[in-house]
Amino acid sequence: MSRQQRQAIDVLLRSTPRSDTPFTVAQQREGFAAGVGRPAPKGVVTRERTLGGRPALDLEPEGALRRGRLLYFHGGCYIIGSPETHAGLVGEFAARAGIRATSVDYRLAPEHPFPAAVDDGLASYRELLDGGEDPGGIVLGGDSAGGGLALATLLAARDAGLPQPAAVVLFSPWVDLTGAGDSMRTKEDADPIFTAAEIHAGVDLYVGDGDRRHPLVSPLFADLSGLPPLLVQVGANEMLLDDSVRLAGRAGADGVGVTLEIGAELPHVYQHHFGRLDEADAALDRAARFLTDRLGAGS
Amino acid sequence: MSRQQRQAIDVLLRSTPRSDTPFTVAQQREGFAAGVGRPAPKGVVTRERTLGGRPALDLEPEGALRRGRLLYFHGGCYIIGSPETHAGLVGEFAARAGIRATSVDYRLAPEHPFPAAVDDGLASYRELLDGGEDPGGIVLGGDSAGGGLALATLLAARDAGLPQPAAVVLFSPWVDLTGAGDSMRTKEDADPIFTAAEIHAGVDLYVGDGDRRHPLVSPLFADLSGLPPLLVQVGANEMLLDDSVRLAGRAGADGVGVTLEIGAELPHVYQHHFGRLDEADAALDRAARFLTDRLGAGS
Repeated sequence: MSRQQRQAIDVLLRSTPRSDTPFTVAQQREGFAAGVGRPAPKGVVTRERTLGGRPALDLEPEGALRRGRLLYFHGGCYIIGSPETHAGLVGEFAARAGIRATSVDYRLAPEHPFPAAVDDGLASYRELLDGGEDPGGIVLGGDSAGGGLALATLLAARDAGLPQPAAVVLFSPWVDLTGAGDSMRTKEDADPIFTAAEIHAGVDLYVGDGDRRHPLVSPLFADLSGLPPLLVQVGANEMLLDDSVRLAGRAGADGVGVTLEIGAELPHVYQHHFGRLDEADAALDRAARFLTDRLGAGS
Repeated sequence: MSRQQRQAIDVLLRSTPRSDTPFTVAQQREGFAAGVGRPAPKGVVTRERTLGGRPALDLEPEGALRRGRLLYFHGGCYIIGSPETHAGLVGEFAARAGIRATSVDYRLAPEHPFPAAVDDGLASYRELLDGGEDPGGIVLGGDSAGGGLALATLLAARDAGLPQPAAVVLFSPWVDLTGAGDSMRTKEDADPIFTAAEIHAGVDLYVGDGDRRHPLVSPLFADLSGLPPLLVQVGANEMLLDDSVRLAGRAGADGVGVTLEIGAELPHVYQHHFGRLDEADAALDRAARFLTDRLGAGS
């Protein structure tokens, strides 16, 4: 089944409407919500809240451990997406790990360019700690831009003297906004989702004239020392493949424990396709085990 | 316990006798056997045989599956080591995976420089296939130079039109004999085992005046298309870290499924230290699961 599933997902992704004139941000947000969004799975109770001064969504699986919380940052190029578009992915991930999750509605560009998202990420993590949560019971997660934001949040927390959480899981993280990875060119045909032009347009909205190599814009160029164990899952069929490969190398060079999983014939954030793509289910199960192993270790 | 364990291993490795005059090859072989060698664990029956025209060692764990065989290539810079020095590591790995293993006593330099080892690797794999073993039931493994040799064997097999096995597991593989990885410099102090001079001396014995970028000498520079799923485990405290990181990137670029695990504060082929280093046991368990999952998949 799995090869057929992979091909079906590829066709589906390539069928996304394209336009000769760029979509407006509002159109992109609507299209993303309609095309990617999946509701929280059955058995996961959602509840709106605020965290770090921003709206957020709690997702609590039935029978979740009292201990442990996944703090999650959704993807969408820092421009689109929301806790609602990612309620399926985050709810499914949290349910498999058996822990509660909170997904942050951080501010988006172009209305709120860098560093608004990072400020919101840090504020949300800080509020969890201020509320008495044990950092050893917190794990961070994110996909695509949300993966970069999760790392930027950890870096900002480290530099602010806050303790690190137990682990971090990133799905296809976007960590080099200079676009220097070889896969930006070599995988453009294989990638069913992105074009280089779209990615560069997103960078312009988020960073403007700012420095694309700033460590909180592109954590690939940061000193990653002191970060917790890191799991990175990425597809081989994506332009952002080398973001993940170089991130793993950078983290290892800085002494961070890393697991990098490259999935053959898989697209960007393929974990969205749980239930219809075997590799997505298997990846979420491995990611869940990675988290629960780290939460259980207690150090 | 684990930090103390890691520190104890580091001290142990740094206590290896050094000499102002280089050791002879005979001295290196003796020292390696004495310092690294561990016997096959209890419950693993060993039996000498020949395979591909070379001596080899079968290791059969109690209750091993009838299906499945690990074809293993030991490390030692293509100069030292043997199935006996690695009987502990291979026996332990095979026992955890519950499959039979065969460890090949391929020819060593300087008596037999490149391509003797690769010829022996290919001959051993070919004899398994000729003997009727299902390639989907074979998995390849190797550490350090043996990891490079496992890859070279797969490449030679592919180019000879032979089918690929189900999976391959590499511990700290040595895949770039040009020594171009950043970690060759940045990790020299952190690495308790190697110096750059020792590595370069080994290359000279194995390759002589030959091309260090030859794809069967340095599989990092090969087209890796068509290889089976690959697990790479490497320590963050080793000069060969970037061999593994770049190998993962290269394999992913060529569409191969890869899992790369970088272990914080761990040395070269730390899996040798099972039973006295928690990370070694955990790594062998994960590697065993990787193999059995692939053998079970049947495709």
